[in-house]
Amino acid sequence: MTQVQLLGQRAKQAEKTLATASTELKNKALENMAQELAAASREILQANAEDMKNARANGVAQVMLDRLLLTEDRIVGMAKGITDIVRLPDPIGVTLSEIKRPNGMTVKKITVPLGVIAVIYEARPNVTSDAAALCLKSGNAVILRGGKEAINSSKAIVKALRLGLEKTGLDENCISLVTDTSRDSATELMRMNEYIDVLIPRGGAGLIRSCVENSTVPVIETGTGNCHIYIDKDADIQMAADIVYNAKTSRPSVCNSAESLVIHKDIIKEALPIIKKRLDEKNVELRGDDTARASADGILPATEDDWGREYLDYIMSVKTVESLDEAIEHISKYSTGHSECIVTENEAAAEEFLKRIDSAAVYHNVSTRFTDGGEFGFGAEIGISTQKLHARGPLGLPQLTSFKYIICGNGQIR
Amino acid sequence: MTQVQLLGQRAKQAEKTLATASTELKNKALENMAQELAAASREILQANAEDMKNARANGVAQVMLDRLLLTEDRIVGMAKGITDIVRLPDPIGVTLSEIKRPNGMTVKKITVPLGVIAVIYEARPNVTSDAAALCLKSGNAVILRGGKEAINSSKAIVKALRLGLEKTGLDENCISLVTDTSRDSATELMRMNEYIDVLIPRGGAGLIRSCVENSTVPVIETGTGNCHIYIDKDADIQMAADIVYNAKTSRPSVCNSAESLVIHKDIIKEALPIIKKRLDEKNVELRGDDTARASADGILPATEDDWGREYLDYIMSVKTVESLDEAIEHISKYSTGHSECIVTENEAAAEEFLKRIDSAAVYHNVSTRFTDGGEFGFGAEIGISTQKLHARGPLGLPQLTSFKYIICGNGQIR
Repeated sequence: MTQVQLLGQRAKQAEKTLATASTELKNKALENMAQELAAASREILQANAEDMKNARANGVAQVMLDRLLLTEDRIVGMAKGITDIVRLPDPIGVTLSEIKRPNGMTVKKITVPLGVIAVIYEARPNVTSDAAALCLKSGNAVILRGGKEAINSSKAIVKALRLGLEKTGLDENCISLVTDTSRDSATELMRMNEYIDVLIPRGGAGLIRSCVENSTVPVIETGTGNCHIYIDKDADIQMAADIVYNAKTSRPSVCNSAESLVIHKDIIKEALPIIKKRLDEKNVELRGDDTARASADGILPATEDDWGREYLDYIMSVKTVESLDEAIEHISKYSTGHSECIVTENEAAAEEFLKRIDSAAVYHNVSTRFTDGGEFGFGAEIGISTQKLHARGPLGLPQLTSFKYIICGNGQIR
Repeated sequence: MTQVQLLGQRAKQAEKTLATASTELKNKALENMAQELAAASREILQANAEDMKNARANGVAQVMLDRLLLTEDRIVGMAKGITDIVRLPDPIGVTLSEIKRPNGMTVKKITVPLGVIAVIYEARPNVTSDAAALCLKSGNAVILRGGKEAINSSKAIVKALRLGLEKTGLDENCISLVTDTSRDSATELMRMNEYIDVLIPRGGAGLIRSCVENSTVPVIETGTGNCHIYIDKDADIQMAADIVYNAKTSRPSVCNSAESLVIHKDIIKEALPIIKKRLDEKNVELRGDDTARASADGILPATEDDWGREYLDYIMSVKTVESLDEAIEHISKYSTGHSECIVTENEAAAEEFLKRIDSAAVYHNVSTRFTDGGEFGFGAEIGISTQKLHARGPLGLPQLTSFKYIICGNGQIR
């Protein structure tokens, strides 16, 4: 039996008890997990220092090193992230509907956990504790498989979290870590339908694609965001510049940042120089079509490849359109279905855009950066789903559930 | 470009208009579809006669011939099935929630269609019209791929349905049929993520397994039901006999029929002879463990293989258990997660069973045969989902939807 199979079997077993655990017990476990995480601070920082040393030696890029690095503050933040989940309502055991049928039987629909969730992610230690805490509160056992660059940090974090479970009297196998970081272990997880109910990949486009293509376990796709902002001919140009500046530059490495600017031809000559001036403050590189390049100085030529790119960097493509229809067509063709925005004072144009754009979040005069569980008022999330099945948008506690029907009667037959 | 690719491309295009079509237009289309189906009755019966002739020549089994056969009455039934959907509420454009955030922006969650749905099924002509009508009402374009034995019937039915769409002014590519019934066309559908949003296989265990294993398109598993009835030590034996008789014999070929009887050892000597006597009326073959065989005459020995079998026939396995716990463990091990029932007068035992059994529908003193959209009061369905992601249990109109978030503001940035 491989490590992954063993973890799967144990998680399935642990899930049987966790699925029907009381809210009080789960909250107590979260508190103990947070406490043990804080108590293991020194050990976790030592493990992280090891990871950082190896990553630097292996020439890992600076942006990735930033994500990998843990500090005492960040560990405090992770522990706080866990206790924040204590306050969120328990999503399990909620009655979604209850009806009495003419034959006297009652049909009740109640929420239940999904079961065992596997999360495959990159070298981000905080995802380890976030995912574990969200899964625990929603009654799901979780098998974590993080990036190999963070393996020592992940081991130390999971050790602390499991200690918290043990102290609560819960099976520590509710949370487990795949320490074999070979590609084989990921592939094995993707095909272990016997023990795993849902697979959530969290990371770059390559990771997501690999899961979709290879997984026989149901997948919830997350995270790739080629987000567009369309500046309509009736836009308030100052508002457009503010929104584009915020959506592109406030945090370029995240999935809800904007990657592509689409502008109506009637407003481009007036709007683009103003927008570009704002973006120049952060040295954003613009890559545009011919009309865009003729409308402002210093814009590089865009190639077909640019329209579909998720840069996650200070780069943005600029596409000129003749009409709202063309904007919608262009966006529908290149969007990853994450978040798109129209900036306009024209209500009819906004309505048309909001109706026809088929993305998880569609905005009117608001920055795409708000696609986030916390910003929507839903609490913590495990990622942003870009698929239509099961969950779309922020994956918070209510999205980590399934439901079952309970039918009671006194001998009804059909 | 293959036929499947062409159908995919056209369906995706047709879906753009259908997704935002009004309820009135969709209902008018359903009425026209029903009308054209009835009008094409003679043509459909001729095509079906051809299919029946070929099937008989190929030695197709009687139970399959029964499903393949169309009569004038059955076509009237199919047309009525379509007009029944007119009366069901439109599941699209429903506001699921609406909140105003402290920064003044509103976040509205509304239902939208899934997009393009592919349905792979066996040689059952009525599935063709049912699936097409449900998809149309829920704003989804559908690509149908039925079994090759029914190909002539399916062609004639889809021709009529498309004529109904055309007369309504809707793109006829909202409903299309894959006429290439090779295995390759099914595999191609399963991997056409570019055009297909969801795949719903409807049929036997082999078909479902093939879709789960080969599909990169998200799948909603349907239909395999190894349903159990557990007779607790505190059961009303007469009620138990009535429920088992109904669940096993009222329609053995469907997924919600019972396949396995699990009985508490304290009641088996008294209950099994009474239950067996009822089942003898329909010559049901029982296959049991040693205790079961010692409790009533004429029970064949069960092998390990029997516990996991979905017979879909007048056969039932009988397992003796020492306790409620053992019953739950046995069922959890062999169940396909469809429907399970406990017969007992003991409320505590019922509660434990309902809580711990993790199936789409869990029954107390009610026949498993009620797991059905119509019987639950939900209206027509496209199948019964046995997975936990997205939809569980009857797949009716509300389950054929996704949702999106619409966020409106006046320049909010983060």
